[in-house]
Amino acid sequence: MPRRETTPDSDKLPALTTPGPRARAYRVLEVADTAAGRWLNGVLLIVIVLNVVAVILESVDAIYAEYAAWFDFFEAISIAIFTVEYAARVWVSVENREFGTGWRGRLRYAGTPMAIVDLVAILPFFLSAFTDVDTRIFRSLRLLRVFKLSRHSAAMDLLLTVIRNEAATVVSSLFVMLIIIILAASGMYIIEREAQPDAFQSIPQAMWWAAVTLTTVGYGDMVPITALGKIFGLLITVAGVGMVALPAGILASGFSQELLKRRALYRLQVKDSLASGDVSAVELDQLKDSAEGFGLSDEEARILLRTEETNASSRTRCPQCGHEFR
Amino acid sequence: MPRRETTPDSDKLPALTTPGPRARAYRVLEVADTAAGRWLNGVLLIVIVLNVVAVILESVDAIYAEYAAWFDFFEAISIAIFTVEYAARVWVSVENREFGTGWRGRLRYAGTPMAIVDLVAILPFFLSAFTDVDTRIFRSLRLLRVFKLSRHSAAMDLLLTVIRNEAATVVSSLFVMLIIIILAASGMYIIEREAQPDAFQSIPQAMWWAAVTLTTVGYGDMVPITALGKIFGLLITVAGVGMVALPAGILASGFSQELLKRRALYRLQVKDSLASGDVSAVELDQLKDSAEGFGLSDEEARILLRTEETNASSRTRCPQCGHEFR
Amino acid sequence: MPRRETTPDSDKLPALTTPGPRARAYRVLEVADTAAGRWLNGVLLIVIVLNVVAVILESVDAIYAEYAAWFDFFEAISIAIFTVEYAARVWVSVENREFGTGWRGRLRYAGTPMAIVDLVAILPFFLSAFTDVDTRIFRSLRLLRVFKLSRHSAAMDLLLTVIRNEAATVVSSLFVMLIIIILAASGMYIIEREAQPDAFQSIPQAMWWAAVTLTTVGYGDMVPITALGKIFGLLITVAGVGMVALPAGILASGFSQELLKRRALYRLQVKDSLASGDVSAVELDQLKDSAEGFGLSDEEARILLRTEETNASSRTRCPQCGHEFR
Amino acid sequence: MPRRETTPDSDKLPALTTPGPRARAYRVLEVADTAAGRWLNGVLLIVIVLNVVAVILESVDAIYAEYAAWFDFFEAISIAIFTVEYAARVWVSVENREFGTGWRGRLRYAGTPMAIVDLVAILPFFLSAFTDVDTRIFRSLRLLRVFKLSRHSAAMDLLLTVIRNEAATVVSSLFVMLIIIILAASGMYIIEREAQPDAFQSIPQAMWWAAVTLTTVGYGDMVPITALGKIFGLLITVAGVGMVALPAGILASGFSQELLKRRALYRLQVKDSLASGDVSAVELDQLKDSAEGFGLSDEEARILLRTEETNASSRTRCPQCGHEFR
Repeated sequence: MPRRETTPDSDKLPALTTPGPRARAYRVLEVADTAAGRWLNGVLLIVIVLNVVAVILESVDAIYAEYAAWFDFFEAISIAIFTVEYAARVWVSVENREFGTGWRGRLRYAGTPMAIVDLVAILPFFLSAFTDVDTRIFRSLRLLRVFKLSRHSAAMDLLLTVIRNEAATVVSSLFVMLIIIILAASGMYIIEREAQPDAFQSIPQAMWWAAVTLTTVGYGDMVPITALGKIFGLLITVAGVGMVALPAGILASGFSQELLKRRALYRLQVKDSLASGDVSAVELDQLKDSAEGFGLSDEEARILLRTEETNASSRTRCPQCGHEFR
Repeated sequence: MPRRETTPDSDKLPALTTPGPRARAYRVLEVADTAAGRWLNGVLLIVIVLNVVAVILESVDAIYAEYAAWFDFFEAISIAIFTVEYAARVWVSVENREFGTGWRGRLRYAGTPMAIVDLVAILPFFLSAFTDVDTRIFRSLRLLRVFKLSRHSAAMDLLLTVIRNEAATVVSSLFVMLIIIILAASGMYIIEREAQPDAFQSIPQAMWWAAVTLTTVGYGDMVPITALGKIFGLLITVAGVGMVALPAGILASGFSQELLKRRALYRLQVKDSLASGDVSAVELDQLKDSAEGFGLSDEEARILLRTEETNASSRTRCPQCGHEFR
Repeated sequence: MPRRETTPDSDKLPALTTPGPRARAYRVLEVADTAAGRWLNGVLLIVIVLNVVAVILESVDAIYAEYAAWFDFFEAISIAIFTVEYAARVWVSVENREFGTGWRGRLRYAGTPMAIVDLVAILPFFLSAFTDVDTRIFRSLRLLRVFKLSRHSAAMDLLLTVIRNEAATVVSSLFVMLIIIILAASGMYIIEREAQPDAFQSIPQAMWWAAVTLTTVGYGDMVPITALGKIFGLLITVAGVGMVALPAGILASGFSQELLKRRALYRLQVKDSLASGDVSAVELDQLKDSAEGFGLSDEEARILLRTEETNASSRTRCPQCGHEFR
Repeated sequence: MPRRETTPDSDKLPALTTPGPRARAYRVLEVADTAAGRWLNGVLLIVIVLNVVAVILESVDAIYAEYAAWFDFFEAISIAIFTVEYAARVWVSVENREFGTGWRGRLRYAGTPMAIVDLVAILPFFLSAFTDVDTRIFRSLRLLRVFKLSRHSAAMDLLLTVIRNEAATVVSSLFVMLIIIILAASGMYIIEREAQPDAFQSIPQAMWWAAVTLTTVGYGDMVPITALGKIFGLLITVAGVGMVALPAGILASGFSQELLKRRALYRLQVKDSLASGDVSAVELDQLKDSAEGFGLSDEEARILLRTEETNASSRTRCPQCGHEFR
């Protein structure tokens, strides 16, 4: 019998015995498995994207001067939508058993990163209504809303999984890079500060050169000019290329591992199915579904299935005496 | 009995019972498995490459001034060749059962990307004959013909397969990069706009800096000059190196997966061959052919074959009756 | 019975029958498996990081001018701490059987890279007390202390292992890069020295251009201006991208191999556990510990365990006597 | 019985029944498996490296002006050594059965890339003795000697093998890059030529910008200044990062595949050894040797051996009835 993994969202579903207005709102806003939910999420997505575009365009003085009224109008509407959305999300959050009930549950929800991002997007407007703070800088915080886009893409999920898996190694390779930047900056500071007292006047200044060089950005605003500085710079640069390559290597192998892991999990399911004899049409459908769930392409799933079938059949019976073994 | 995969082009072959002139032309132009077909395709290839070279050289005023007549003459000939080729391809397209018959089939063919590229390469000439449009810009569209070169290289096919397989993930990593560019640009705009009001006068301007920096191009036309700007730039740059590495990682693991997949498919074929007893010389030839079809090197194919042989021979007898089997 | 790998540090532990003051000090300083040891190591870590920060800040004239007294005071304290630490480490080093006993053992310890780094960090201060040497440059040597940080991070260990494994290949790819830099520099020197006699006045000068270009840093301080120089530069640059990619490729595959190796070692342990029948709770705990020791994530370990269980259960009975075995 | 791969150099060894002076010279020069051979090769290596250093230093006018006599003296000696070496290699080449006998064999040897490199290194000197050609440029050709260094490094061999294996794919990805450079250059030429008629005055000029940008070198000597040019440049740059990543991806997966292939070959040998019962000490030594021959580290070889042993022993006997199967 094939075992199916329980979907990760199943415990977020409220008990369906009491579909009151709050439960229905929760289903529309957070579960979004109904037509209304999908429609609402689509609208919110568009509003977020429009806000990002608006923040970018507003920063162009010529555009803002001409369409200031429109931008202010659009911001007022956006704030209204985001405020209602935030209030609604806080209200329905207690439907999610994860957070608990009452105001304590709502406070716990308000402490999640997503909820904080939501709050940060509307707070500046209300702050500026009562204080003198320049809202234009605060308004840029609306850009943080782009992070909410991340939960709408499947491939993005694979990406974030790999980044999360490899975080420790990537961080330590960035740490190694930081140490190399400090050492390169100190060396170049000692070598170049006499020839270029303005550019290399301190190690922090030289760190800017080192970072720009070791990441291979190379603006050219700070360049060694002494012979010794160029030799040191050449060695550091050639060696640095390897260090810059490290995060790439780590993430690349992370991707491979993640895909191999998913393939191994899928193979286990296929083996379970084959263990109970021939694969029925129903089981085949379930296997196809779970292959999709593991992010495998149709072709890959088909090959894995055929491989396991061949393996299974090749050690099933003696062709002469019919004795079953394996 | 070894099963052979049907070649993907087999359904493009017209029925061979009625080799009329259109069927023969189709065979020469599109299937290109005869001497005439190969010769014609070689000529068209050379004309395409010469056109690309001509478009590049024409743009140099000194060269165009001296050889204008030759360029115009070459263009007239090219247009003639491409027009005849396009007409011929549309005419014979109905031989391909995929598109259907009659004008509806021809229209369906004309809608394929390859046919559109062919049309775009000749249209500007005829447009300029009747209108006042500057043909020199339009002529550059002939460059799009380079895309037709892609169907003549086997390695290019592997390349495009990998890009297609990984498209979703690469696109989402580019999407992540876009979000990071927007956030980096907004941050730098807020930090640097007072020190450099000309360079960082708006977020779109700052996005140019962010894109140039995060892709490690680093022209140096826009560089942060304030201490805070440099610290922010340093952090963004070091973190950005990881993001720039992502598409590399994805494509690298994509290549590995594609080769592993082909190897797995080939192993299945080898197992099929071994299942029927010893591998005959004919089967060995077929295996070699299909190894080539899967893009495996001779050495790899040989190792895979030996591995499977060893595996097969190591479980050769039924432990009960002693009967030899695979 | 599961075999456990002996921990690499086990032979550094002194005989525990005579816990004299030196043995206790050794345990606190070098083994650091007690609360006092962890506390002391934490303090030393903080002093090292503060020293690195101090060296960087001191190099800024404005900061040093204002807080010179504080920096000098902090340096005096640091020197005191590091001197005591160095003396203590030399004193207790004979507890480690690896180095032998008496002054010969202590000298052998003093010759290890870590001990030399420790000495270099304090020597300049004492040198400047008796000589006229500019201590400010020597003081930068304190930065070498950052290398001591490397033994406190697990992920850093994986990183260094991969770099060590791939050192030979990375070095030879850097060697290939050096040869290409020489050839590119010679070619560009021949082509450009007439047009830019100042910039490309010798091959060593041109090597700076070649290194900056082939590592894709591209400062822009030296750029070919002749047509031939640009064509040569274009070819070298496009080809060089591949060479720059080599260390990345080597380190990336190194990471994959290291992880595969650790996985293979873990699988052997799992098989050993399964060989003795069902896996007991104690064995499961031991397996989990060793999975962590091999740097595998919990999820990976779980999948490997399940895979081996399935493999084991699938060949459970002797086909002749029906006896159940693994 | 373990089969051993014949070493690739075995057919270069001359028949050892007639060790005349030419055969002995061949052994010293080309096989280099005696003390004299190793010593001679070491001397030639040093002369090559010194020549490379001399060519680089000579190009610095100040150095050449002062030490011209020494450089000329060193060059005369080098030419003498290289001429004798070349003559000797041509003389003994007929000992290698690969080339055949007599002058036809010697001519065939003289046509090999290594022999041509040797000739090119000495020819300019003799040419300049009879003609007026500037020898200083020709002298740079001595740099080509660096290619001979490549046959002295084991890791370099792995590197070259991977490059050779992946050549087709890398070349096609460079070809794709060339097409993208042409398209990017044409686009930018159309967009920017009015704003910057000097910089973007033709497509070949714009190709320099495109190449410098897409390889992420980014000198900054040509930068789009119009808004449309910046948007186009941004898109091309972000997309180009993916293309630049391709050769990296291909070579990275090439390395992995090469190592996997060698591991598979070694596993076959281990299986052969295990098939004949327990592994004897002699066989173990042979396995260790061949693991080194396949470029595997000791640790990797040990793990592979243990894995195969476990696999072999796990399906050997029924623990109850002792029946052997597998």
